[in-house]
Amino acid sequence: MYAKAERGERLVILGIDPGLARMGYGVIDAGASAYKMICYGIIETKPDIPMPRRLNIIQRGVRELIALYAPEDIAFEELFFAKNVKTALMVAAARGAAVAVASEYTENLYEYTPLQIKQAIVGYGRAEKTQIQKMVKMILKLEEIPKPDDAADGLAVAVTHANTGRSKSRFMMK
Amino acid sequence: MYAKAERGERLVILGIDPGLARMGYGVIDAGASAYKMICYGIIETKPDIPMPRRLNIIQRGVRELIALYAPEDIAFEELFFAKNVKTALMVAAARGAAVAVASEYTENLYEYTPLQIKQAIVGYGRAEKTQIQKMVKMILKLEEIPKPDDAADGLAVAVTHANTGRSKSRFMMK
Repeated sequence: MYAKAERGERLVILGIDPGLARMGYGVIDAGASAYKMICYGIIETKPDIPMPRRLNIIQRGVRELIALYAPEDIAFEELFFAKNVKTALMVAAARGAAVAVASEYTENLYEYTPLQIKQAIVGYGRAEKTQIQKMVKMILKLEEIPKPDDAADGLAVAVTHANTGRSKSRFMMK
Repeated sequence: MYAKAERGERLVILGIDPGLARMGYGVIDAGASAYKMICYGIIETKPDIPMPRRLNIIQRGVRELIALYAPEDIAFEELFFAKNVKTALMVAAARGAAVAVASEYTENLYEYTPLQIKQAIVGYGRAEKTQIQKMVKMILKLEEIPKPDDAADGLAVAVTHANTGRSKSRFMMK
């Protein structure tokens, strides 16, 4: 586990589940033996806002999260090919905008596939979304399952990175 | 024509042909009766650089162009579905990063399809790339065809916007 080597030190991880309408995020501190949830939520942009402004809102949102929580590491869920190519291109644009801002701030960027997230949190790759959410709730000792799903996914990415460690999954996206 | 209403006023247009490895740009002043080329070039990012840093280089490049030339309007070539989906997603990310920076600076953002560019510059939609380049050279009274192609494409987008005007093709990308 990631945290062991640095136990007791501050190790804040920002996890991001990229999306255009809702970009989920979760911030945890994995420095102690028990991970601690710091916050979670979504950056929301309405579909009737022109695309450039939506991207701008996302960038300001990510910049604000970084300024507020000063994460040591930032982890993204990897983009997968959606059924709808147009949707995939829009998510890719949103994700690119978020990654660009993160890259201004740190080189400690990581990405995980949905499969890696399932394996890191539930232990096997065919886990259901609700199983992941329950595990995230348990690991972080939350009173309830985080809502909306995108925010829960953001936390799941952060926990995945805490469980996986810096040595693996350095962001390449080639 | 766009420029007529405001002839004599400064009307600097930044045209961008989005790409990840090479993002072409062209800056023209369309305020006078004859358009004037101000500069053109590419923002280049090598494939061996991690994706987040490439996006960051693109954002810094676009930010620098805006700071240097303070364009009134910024026009982008629209993203088209590439044969290779993975490539399309990478270009979409690069384009998203560039558009986000442009959106920080102005709401005067426009986009044109390759078809619109051909029609605006050569007059018909099946024009060859070399025909567009020759027309751009002629319209801007250049001594030679701009190189590389991406830079020529950036200029073509700027000229297209000068010929089309602000009333049309406001950036939506929905």
